[in-house]
Amino acid sequence: MSKKWFFEDLYPSLKISYKIEKEFYRRRSSFQKIEIFKNPLMGRVLALDGIVQTTEKDEFIYHEMLTHIPLMSHPNPKKVLIIGGGDGGVLREVLKYPVEKVTMVEIDRKVIETSKKYLRNICQRSFESKKLELIIEDGAKFVQNTKEKFDVVIIDSSDPIGPAKILFKKKFYQDIRKILSKKGMMTRQTGSTFYQEDEMAENFKISKEIFKYTFLYLIAIPSYIGGFFSLLYSSSTINPVKINKNFLKRKIKNLNLKTKYYNPDIHISCFLLPEYIKKTLKI
Amino acid sequence: MSKKWFFEDLYPSLKISYKIEKEFYRRRSSFQKIEIFKNPLMGRVLALDGIVQTTEKDEFIYHEMLTHIPLMSHPNPKKVLIIGGGDGGVLREVLKYPVEKVTMVEIDRKVIETSKKYLRNICQRSFESKKLELIIEDGAKFVQNTKEKFDVVIIDSSDPIGPAKILFKKKFYQDIRKILSKKGMMTRQTGSTFYQEDEMAENFKISKEIFKYTFLYLIAIPSYIGGFFSLLYSSSTINPVKINKNFLKRKIKNLNLKTKYYNPDIHISCFLLPEYIKKTLKI
Repeated sequence: MSKKWFFEDLYPSLKISYKIEKEFYRRRSSFQKIEIFKNPLMGRVLALDGIVQTTEKDEFIYHEMLTHIPLMSHPNPKKVLIIGGGDGGVLREVLKYPVEKVTMVEIDRKVIETSKKYLRNICQRSFESKKLELIIEDGAKFVQNTKEKFDVVIIDSSDPIGPAKILFKKKFYQDIRKILSKKGMMTRQTGSTFYQEDEMAENFKISKEIFKYTFLYLIAIPSYIGGFFSLLYSSSTINPVKINKNFLKRKIKNLNLKTKYYNPDIHISCFLLPEYIKKTLKI
Repeated sequence: MSKKWFFEDLYPSLKISYKIEKEFYRRRSSFQKIEIFKNPLMGRVLALDGIVQTTEKDEFIYHEMLTHIPLMSHPNPKKVLIIGGGDGGVLREVLKYPVEKVTMVEIDRKVIETSKKYLRNICQRSFESKKLELIIEDGAKFVQNTKEKFDVVIIDSSDPIGPAKILFKKKFYQDIRKILSKKGMMTRQTGSTFYQEDEMAENFKISKEIFKYTFLYLIAIPSYIGGFFSLLYSSSTINPVKINKNFLKRKIKNLNLKTKYYNPDIHISCFLLPEYIKKTLKI
């Protein structure tokens, strides 16, 4: 039977619920429960294991900021690795750069299949790109075993519960460092600065032990409730903050990069943190 | 009978709901329905007409940013007017400055009474200040009739539905301009940049017609869902963005100002807007 409302199952005493205008898909894959429905305010919504991953209306914020911060900071990104990202949103943004190859390692083939079918506004034609190498595998295993090096690694995973849990361990960060090229860098999400502050602080701490340049940066996105939402930047060599605004402007112009959220001001300001977050991070 | 969950009644197809651990107050005043309850994650919550106004856990963000942006930008604020603000949070922040007098005009005496009784962590002892002149009156009428001038006016109102509707009209902005001293300025909330974008754009437009320095600035606060939440700054004479960071640092030190959100970096960066907001504002 079709449901009338979707209640997000993330915090026991605070819930966001979406009216379901139309249900497109609700089935359990080998890894997780996948739901896709349409909400009048947010458009089509993808939920994994009861938690909203992306919506048509606001996906651009997360996908742009996870992608453009590293790709604008890197002087010449050629090889990009995406771990997860089965909805294709990060892939779409990466393909706005003249990269040579994008490797996507997604554990759940069903997420890609359903996104290609029902979330065309998000993935667009990105899965058809000849630059894409798509690998259906556990991201942690891939990172441990690959002999390739990457300029940019983007971890677009769900929260550290269910299949993504292993992607938040120190071992995974160490493995990531090994597969980064000399000027390589990584970005990922580390949760709400309010409701998931322990997860955020823990990942920041682990990254700092491994990467010289570890920064938290902030976005605000309706479907990730909890005030500022945190993204993590890690690199041994490239500082994404000490970057010239005019350089960014020129690069945007040369690439003819179209964005709905990212701009050079945001590139600089997203790294500036309110007092409560600095306190949580002990910086 | 006591309720188990509070469902916010703001958007028809998207709802945030708070588990009620304990209910303190639920009654209709002459103006609106007032509810105060405790939620395990957010602490005590104040709702007016079914919409969450403030919570113990995250109130500091809104109250600090509505207050410190104008009071740090003004060279020497002596007389401050607060319209609304019955929970006492803005008043508490204003009293961190050596002002001479704070006038608070709140339409609903019951909001102040219940806040003093149940939201002591928010108002603290601010209502006992000898600098406070408390006036129970319609804010729009007060602004229209007063002969006083103010250095800073802070409108801490609910959304433009119910008793606060009149505070979002052009006439009100014109009346505000008349009661500002030479270096005077005003701040207020103008809603979610996602779900209330029309309200935000309309208020920005009205302010621009009346005040030379009209700026939108951004905060992210868990209990106001919808991504970035917008605050509006209006002044005929003082630009709050062209301000020296070292000046702010010295002023904070001299005042011995303690904050949990505001800092000089945030003062500058909160005015930098993502592309989608600039597009909505047509700037």
